[in-house]
Amino acid sequence: MSEKKKILIIYAHPEPKSFNGALLNKAIEIFQNQEHEVKVSDLYEMNFQAVATKKDFTSLKNPEFFKMQLEQRQNNMIDEIKNEQKKVEWADLVIFIFPLWWSGLPAILKGWFDRVFYQWPKLYDQGVFKEKKSLLSVSTGAPRSLYTERGLNGNISKILYSITHGCLYFCGFQVLPTSYHYSVGQSEKIAEECLLSWEERLKNIFDEKPLNFNGLKDYGERGLSQGKKTDLEIIGELL
Amino acid sequence: MSEKKKILIIYAHPEPKSFNGALLNKAIEIFQNQEHEVKVSDLYEMNFQAVATKKDFTSLKNPEFFKMQLEQRQNNMIDEIKNEQKKVEWADLVIFIFPLWWSGLPAILKGWFDRVFYQWPKLYDQGVFKEKKSLLSVSTGAPRSLYTERGLNGNISKILYSITHGCLYFCGFQVLPTSYHYSVGQSEKIAEECLLSWEERLKNIFDEKPLNFNGLKDYGERGLSQGKKTDLEIIGELL
Repeated sequence: MSEKKKILIIYAHPEPKSFNGALLNKAIEIFQNQEHEVKVSDLYEMNFQAVATKKDFTSLKNPEFFKMQLEQRQNNMIDEIKNEQKKVEWADLVIFIFPLWWSGLPAILKGWFDRVFYQWPKLYDQGVFKEKKSLLSVSTGAPRSLYTERGLNGNISKILYSITHGCLYFCGFQVLPTSYHYSVGQSEKIAEECLLSWEERLKNIFDEKPLNFNGLKDYGERGLSQGKKTDLEIIGELL
Repeated sequence: MSEKKKILIIYAHPEPKSFNGALLNKAIEIFQNQEHEVKVSDLYEMNFQAVATKKDFTSLKNPEFFKMQLEQRQNNMIDEIKNEQKKVEWADLVIFIFPLWWSGLPAILKGWFDRVFYQWPKLYDQGVFKEKKSLLSVSTGAPRSLYTERGLNGNISKILYSITHGCLYFCGFQVLPTSYHYSVGQSEKIAEECLLSWEERLKNIFDEKPLNFNGLKDYGERGLSQGKKTDLEIIGELL
């Protein structure tokens, strides 16, 4: 029996019967079969507030001039936010399941990052979450061919760099290669195949190695050390 | 007297006294002095709903299985959304003023794209908005040095590719080079200098040439024609 793990799933889709809903259900099933612990934040179901405002804080250091980062440092967020932060702190692995909307996160999930994450004092490989793993599951309407390096929309791993690198690795998370589910909605067959490969992947997800991003020590005053690949190049090579 | 233009500003910041608020006010002032017409969507002030839901539609083609893209094609959005769409259709230039949060759009602005934009039938250089120009104004807390090609956060033009290319050019917009305002909040002096260069730029904004992205004719069955730079490369060279 392998070690019992704690998994948090952040799920952002308005329709429970959707393909993304099936990905969520499959993930829960797999992890429960393996006797891991699973928590889910179903953002639509929770009616999660997407927009960061003054109301996110029980009291304000400066009510006359709202500076979100300043207020976040006081650590006086409302319970809706603290509860999410506690779940992240609890987890060994955080999985984000969402459809690609306008080349990015659905607003409800972007708002989760805006409100729940804050400028942790240490960054990247020194970040507070460096012992935790993270994984994006992204569904697209368009086929894979449009998301290659020279495809019409461009390399999807690079499109998602602002999330994998700018949100997750920024806070220290180890980032596993993203699971892409292309052309879903095109046919039942495609959806079934995607679900099957999702299931296979999740079964051994804790054996996987994270992306080999550069660490703080790789940067000098003039930026990344000569000869090293940038993190965008590293992530772009996955496709 | 130069031609009278129609300018729409989409503004996303919770604090009117902020640097972003000053950018907005300066833009309105410049354009009104030039006797252009200006409309503003102040998303926080409007209490704009960020999260796309079933309630965005006056009636649903399929209430049992919510498929947003399907519903959007029926063109039965509620007035809050239609009003924004009309403003976009009215404008010659759309300017987005926002702070960079988690390497991306504040959720309220991402939600504006999720709800207001939809899959127009033609894309990229054939897109429905191909006669219109667009411009991002992005403020960051971190200095420029962190956002270079080999900086710690990576090339900011590439970080924003999912917006300039994935949202704006996707719908046909001509995309002007983004205005970056780095290290704002660091000192009054920096903020003043940024405001001054913003003012200078806007005075002649209609003389500027958009980014020279590839058009649909540049793509064959195997993707972008050999020898051509990808749009990500084109945008990345701006820094």
